[in-house]
Amino acid sequence: MNYLSERARELSPYVAGIQPREEGWIKLNTNENPYPPSPEVAEAIKNFDAAKLRLYPDGDCHELREAVAENLGTGAENVFAGNGSDEVLGLAFQAFFSDKKNVLMPDISYGFYPVWSAMYGVEAKTVPLSGDYTIDAGGYKGANGVIIANPNAPTGVAIGLDEIEEIVKNNPNGVVVIDEAYIDFAGGEKTESAVALSDKYDNLLVTRTFSKSYSLAGLRVGFAVGSKELIDGLQRVKNAFNSYPLGMLEQTAAKAAVRDADYWDETRRRIIGTRGRTTAKLRALGYNVLDSQANFLFMEAPDAKGLYEYLYENKILVRYWDKPGISGFLRVTVGTEAEMEAFLQCIEKQTKPR
Amino acid sequence: MNYLSERARELSPYVAGIQPREEGWIKLNTNENPYPPSPEVAEAIKNFDAAKLRLYPDGDCHELREAVAENLGTGAENVFAGNGSDEVLGLAFQAFFSDKKNVLMPDISYGFYPVWSAMYGVEAKTVPLSGDYTIDAGGYKGANGVIIANPNAPTGVAIGLDEIEEIVKNNPNGVVVIDEAYIDFAGGEKTESAVALSDKYDNLLVTRTFSKSYSLAGLRVGFAVGSKELIDGLQRVKNAFNSYPLGMLEQTAAKAAVRDADYWDETRRRIIGTRGRTTAKLRALGYNVLDSQANFLFMEAPDAKGLYEYLYENKILVRYWDKPGISGFLRVTVGTEAEMEAFLQCIEKQTKPR
Repeated sequence: MNYLSERARELSPYVAGIQPREEGWIKLNTNENPYPPSPEVAEAIKNFDAAKLRLYPDGDCHELREAVAENLGTGAENVFAGNGSDEVLGLAFQAFFSDKKNVLMPDISYGFYPVWSAMYGVEAKTVPLSGDYTIDAGGYKGANGVIIANPNAPTGVAIGLDEIEEIVKNNPNGVVVIDEAYIDFAGGEKTESAVALSDKYDNLLVTRTFSKSYSLAGLRVGFAVGSKELIDGLQRVKNAFNSYPLGMLEQTAAKAAVRDADYWDETRRRIIGTRGRTTAKLRALGYNVLDSQANFLFMEAPDAKGLYEYLYENKILVRYWDKPGISGFLRVTVGTEAEMEAFLQCIEKQTKPR
Repeated sequence: MNYLSERARELSPYVAGIQPREEGWIKLNTNENPYPPSPEVAEAIKNFDAAKLRLYPDGDCHELREAVAENLGTGAENVFAGNGSDEVLGLAFQAFFSDKKNVLMPDISYGFYPVWSAMYGVEAKTVPLSGDYTIDAGGYKGANGVIIANPNAPTGVAIGLDEIEEIVKNNPNGVVVIDEAYIDFAGGEKTESAVALSDKYDNLLVTRTFSKSYSLAGLRVGFAVGSKELIDGLQRVKNAFNSYPLGMLEQTAAKAAVRDADYWDETRRRIIGTRGRTTAKLRALGYNVLDSQANFLFMEAPDAKGLYEYLYENKILVRYWDKPGISGFLRVTVGTEAEMEAFLQCIEKQTKPR
């Protein structure tokens, strides 16, 4: 017999990119950072006293939240820390969207949003992207909740702070969640973080992760920034699910990473540089590539599925979705210069263009 | 305005024991292990290559699940690993109990069960303990789900495998979850793990933790053992909430711990020995102490609240709940021999008996 709850039975879980266990792949499919984390992280782990692990960690992550707050120029009471930004977002859905109607999200965005909606009884409505794959700020009004990724995934396209502010103002009765997993790779004044608005609007929640710009996908730490009211709401729901989601090693390593701002800045700039050069070369080869503000490229191809398979045969992993609106594109993570060279050469080597 | 979802608003979150940040406390309030984890854990962390953290971890925790399965003589497909047994239990509530009526649990048990029930719309019914604070196996029949802690918390009292099997047989239409956080401290044939039954009943799920007998509360790893059907159900719900709850360091350290069976056995035996000696001395002082099969004691006191406060003034932390049925008791974690000596001397030093 089927023991699953009705809700669990009806779910279609999120499918993450492949993590091949054998060597030899060029892995451009899960937006990982090609560079190692700060040497301070390795140092913090080496110096960690394992005997301390017998005790429970600080369930409120005080020191980590203080380090993040100091880095962002806000207060620790405005920061929530969780087990990756996926957990933070999953808790935000439970705290602010659960069982609500008319929660708005882009029709093309992070694939986990509809999964959390199904999981927590959220009646989500999708707002189409505009023709150039940009989020249409004007389409978000009077909702009971809004969630937007900025820069958006899998397009990499970002909107400006003025448009974010317009969305926050137009939805005063709901929480507006801005998922900034990739914001550290955004450049130019059109792509400032919405954290700058968080002390002005008590319905704005900004989520971030250590997985991308801090090269710590294997650690599992994310955080949210917002009004004390929203942070308390997240704490409340967290303490009704799992009191200690972040272990001592996570808190220690993430603290070390956030304090090494120079390394973080150097790494993200290197990736931004590689992104620009790769985009230019792909365009020179005749491909349409969206203007990316993230650590990945969204490129259009005459035969995207065929190109995905061709790259796969050559042990280069990228991401392809057979979904309306995006089935003509590939999402390609920005790796090292050498990895992107290999990727470009593989594309040039094609006998039939895809 | 209140942005919280109705469900989040109505919650009363679980309140964990205090984690004092300053030194000098004798901490007998959160059932932590007084001994450090296996030296193999320290070694595994020291030798961990931090550069790997740039990549996502194995979301399915293959190697850890194989190590646990090997240790328990079952298959990896029968093991689910999660972010502490709290997360495993929280996911089990969502997978098997969510929005169901008539889910049975003891009236005196782990305080998180009613919290998860409220969080996931479970209509829980409580079954009274029998007069001697034992779980009344006969009280669990024809339910849509059952959750029991064995040994039970905060009493420390265990029931036998025969009674567990009776409960599993009498509830064929629901999942029976046996929370075995403390089973490794149980002794004697009356307290064998229900894992022994898991290949016989596809509706039985047994949960475990690395926090207690493996001295790894600060790591956050727990697991569940059950039929492939139930494990797949947990994976399904996990992948609809957070794809990567266990980081690389957790998986590596937990694997090292489970493989050092000798250290685990030596540590738990030492605690069982201290538990026996402390129980005898408390009884000699005239206190009623329940027969504990866990790493804590549940002791009755004429003035339990007064005794809690007296111990607190002497920098000894224990747990007291002002709740019907248990407000006459204190829960005291079994620490080192020296810690329990200090605890006993403090009690003997009382000018007025509490």
